Amino acid sequence: MHISGKNRVGYTEPDAFAYTFRTFDPKQNRENDFDIFGATDADIEAAVQKAADTFLEFSNLPGKRRAEFLLRIAEKLLLEKESLISIYCLESALPEGRALIELKRTIHQLHEFAELISVENWNFSSSEPADPNRAGNPKPSLHKYFKALGPVVVFGASNFPFAYSTIGGDSASALAAGCPVIVKAHVMHAGTGNLVARLVSEAARETGMPDGIFSNLNALGNEAGEKLVLHPKIKAVGFTGSFKGGMALYKLAQNRPEPIPVFAEMGSVNPVFLFEGAFQQPGLVHRISQSISLNAGQFCTNPGLIFLQKSEASGEFIAALAKSLENLEPQSMLHPQILKNYTENASRLAENKSIINLVETNNKLENKVQPLLRQTTAQDFLQNHTFQEEVFGSHTLIVVLDDKKEFLTVARHLDGQLTLSIFAAENELQENIDFLRVCEQKAGRLIWNGVPTGVEVCRAMNHGGPFPATTDARFTAVGKDAVYRFLRPLAYQNFSLEILRKLIS
Amino acid sequence: MHISGKNRVGYTEPDAFAYTFRTFDPKQNRENDFDIFGATDADIEAAVQKAADTFLEFSNLPGKRRAEFLLRIAEKLLLEKESLISIYCLESALPEGRALIELKRTIHQLHEFAELISVENWNFSSSEPADPNRAGNPKPSLHKYFKALGPVVVFGASNFPFAYSTIGGDSASALAAGCPVIVKAHVMHAGTGNLVARLVSEAARETGMPDGIFSNLNALGNEAGEKLVLHPKIKAVGFTGSFKGGMALYKLAQNRPEPIPVFAEMGSVNPVFLFEGAFQQPGLVHRISQSISLNAGQFCTNPGLIFLQKSEASGEFIAALAKSLENLEPQSMLHPQILKNYTENASRLAENKSIINLVETNNKLENKVQPLLRQTTAQDFLQNHTFQEEVFGSHTLIVVLDDKKEFLTVARHLDGQLTLSIFAAENELQENIDFLRVCEQKAGRLIWNGVPTGVEVCRAMNHGGPFPATTDARFTAVGKDAVYRFLRPLAYQNFSLEILRKLIS
Repeated sequence: MHISGKNRVGYTEPDAFAYTFRTFDPKQNRENDFDIFGATDADIEAAVQKAADTFLEFSNLPGKRRAEFLLRIAEKLLLEKESLISIYCLESALPEGRALIELKRTIHQLHEFAELISVENWNFSSSEPADPNRAGNPKPSLHKYFKALGPVVVFGASNFPFAYSTIGGDSASALAAGCPVIVKAHVMHAGTGNLVARLVSEAARETGMPDGIFSNLNALGNEAGEKLVLHPKIKAVGFTGSFKGGMALYKLAQNRPEPIPVFAEMGSVNPVFLFEGAFQQPGLVHRISQSISLNAGQFCTNPGLIFLQKSEASGEFIAALAKSLENLEPQSMLHPQILKNYTENASRLAENKSIINLVETNNKLENKVQPLLRQTTAQDFLQNHTFQEEVFGSHTLIVVLDDKKEFLTVARHLDGQLTLSIFAAENELQENIDFLRVCEQKAGRLIWNGVPTGVEVCRAMNHGGPFPATTDARFTAVGKDAVYRFLRPLAYQNFSLEILRKLIS
Repeated sequence: MHISGKNRVGYTEPDAFAYTFRTFDPKQNRENDFDIFGATDADIEAAVQKAADTFLEFSNLPGKRRAEFLLRIAEKLLLEKESLISIYCLESALPEGRALIELKRTIHQLHEFAELISVENWNFSSSEPADPNRAGNPKPSLHKYFKALGPVVVFGASNFPFAYSTIGGDSASALAAGCPVIVKAHVMHAGTGNLVARLVSEAARETGMPDGIFSNLNALGNEAGEKLVLHPKIKAVGFTGSFKGGMALYKLAQNRPEPIPVFAEMGSVNPVFLFEGAFQQPGLVHRISQSISLNAGQFCTNPGLIFLQKSEASGEFIAALAKSLENLEPQSMLHPQILKNYTENASRLAENKSIINLVETNNKLENKVQPLLRQTTAQDFLQNHTFQEEVFGSHTLIVVLDDKKEFLTVARHLDGQLTLSIFAAENELQENIDFLRVCEQKAGRLIWNGVPTGVEVCRAMNHGGPFPATTDARFTAVGKDAVYRFLRPLAYQNFSLEILRKLIS
């Protein structure tokens, strides 16, 4: 497949551009050799206008029709696997194995949403029969169904070029709901986005979707994204990325004349609590070491904080974990800018004197890093809120507690999280229900004896959580329920079934 | 029952107060003879603190336990019916019959939410079994349940002293969800609020609820409400009232360091479309006249706009409707301030020269009004956005269209609404699916051959709608689903059923 580098506005790839830029190959430490076209204001306006114009038609197609479209995209992704994986790796330095897993996940997500909307009456909520004879006050019939919100802007995530970008979970769930999607492509993998967007567009055309339900725009800086979020015809936003970026868009959207829902997944430090029983578990060091270091730690579910109580066993665990991490090969990060942020954030933390480095790292290698494992005390953790801020990348701070009681204290002190893991024997959980009660309040997903990385894509998953993990704890970004971010209920009162059948698709 | 006038902070009624004020009897045109105590800052802080302290215990009670509490409140409301209705009428000038209907509705709502949470596993969302043998990647079990958000602030509505105030739909649904509630009482019926709050508190104590799950604060001005919304321990807000008030609280909450969900139901003009077939329907004039004038039009679902096409039949309808309204007895409004706003808003509209008054009114009577019926053209409607602004009270603007095609044009031009009614013969709907498609986008509830007033309380109801009707079209304020405004999903990964049983209540 050839990377045109152009923007995509519905079925067209406009020739005009505001400027060009290039993506970067972190492994070779050089720019890639194709141009990406920066979107013009006209592209932005055209993409939104097309989306708005096509909304009624698209959102009122039978679910099965949109399901065909999603399944066709999945098919095309699989057919073009090789081209896609090759550009994905070139633009992210992520290994091929990971690219394949992520592509499969992206396909699986499309299948999941297609399955959801293929079911007859998928958008049914509830109904109530009429009672015309109710004394004094005849009761009308009510039929409640879900309807799409309108055109949605999706911001691609740097660390998931497939599964949380162009046709990742946000786009797929919005399209399933019946919302036209405009993707603001992530600049770091704009080439990958270009190819994926073409496949989405082809699938749309082949399955008879109206023009304008999907656009993909490239732009450096924040201006294009801001314009999209502020456009009165945009009705919702999906975002996966940094706290700073997510909050900027959130505030922008909430202060519009017409505020709109923004689901921003802004990452998390995913605390891991190791009770004494944890250290009896075989393979604990390996599992946690893997979770910390996988793909240079570039996951929103990367374990950034570990809490454990000072003991012989925990001391041995720390030493073994440090050794395990130290022995790992350095890995490339997604982009020099991501590496720069990682280094800066990690250094800022190190200014605090309570922080001890537990591994010797050689991070002078070009765009490559080794995991950072550090240690502090409960006291210092409680006094330094910065210790709760995500250092995106492989960075884990072990907080050593003097006393078992401190588990409850530090848990209470935590901000909202995507996940919270507890490694413990069953009797330790039984004895610490109060602690679990606090943990429940702090996260969108609680894990027993499991690492936070690895997000199972299924209906019972919740990938979300209390602020600052997301901007709305009431929704999930993963699994079929992700579609409800982009739907609203509509009650039909007193309508005949004949008319209802015409309206409900 | 004796009105103490005091604030209620959990089980206590503090003696201290910042100032006192009095409610007003619009019928007698005089202040009522009891003092209401303005809350001190200490009361506000104590109410929030108690709510936060009690949250874990309250939210983790089995649903059945909270259901007992809600049912006990309902019982008490019924037992104290006479006192409650008497003070309700004194503070609102609403007739006894309306007070009784609203009290019954309030009781019904409590029953509905109690029924919802009495069901075992009421908070279950979905689950997925583990597959430890999945090749390469063992699948963990996942169990997703809903959890309460945290302490909620509820703002009482002037026009629903029972059903949308102290223990109205917002409070009842938040308590059902497991969220402690702090009511900022509406100043106009603070005496009613004082009695209802005492009953809620008694019910809480009798059914063994922890202290602090319910508080009721009185305050003039906006400051106390703003303090509550800005308090870091408050996790959600329910509001029913004006666009201005709702948006002020919404912006405040979204610009907190930690933004929180605000469900603000801000009213609507509830457009009514009369197709030619409508005029064949027996009783049309009477039904619409009733809907316009009921309780001086003080409903968020009051029909503020009527669209019809110029014809002999529609001309007769307009004349008959004007006559019907003109013959009605003047009715008291809720408060001189509400009357003042009504008069000002209605006058501002009349500055537009295209507006023709269709009824002679004598609104010089003390606190009393007759319905205002006015007329304009489609052209003028399209050019004046103020014609879409709610005039709270009995005010209806008929927009006369020259051509059938204009139904679509004006529908497209509408803002978001709570409701949208269409009176038409079935074949007229069949022929106007495009028009219905636009209507679907504009409202939370579509009604065929029915007036917008009268909100059936049942699960299939949707009382919500696109902005500016509410701040989040994805939720309803009426019916069992209202509880989801105050719940978030939490996934338990890899937990044993034994531990899960301990956690899920």
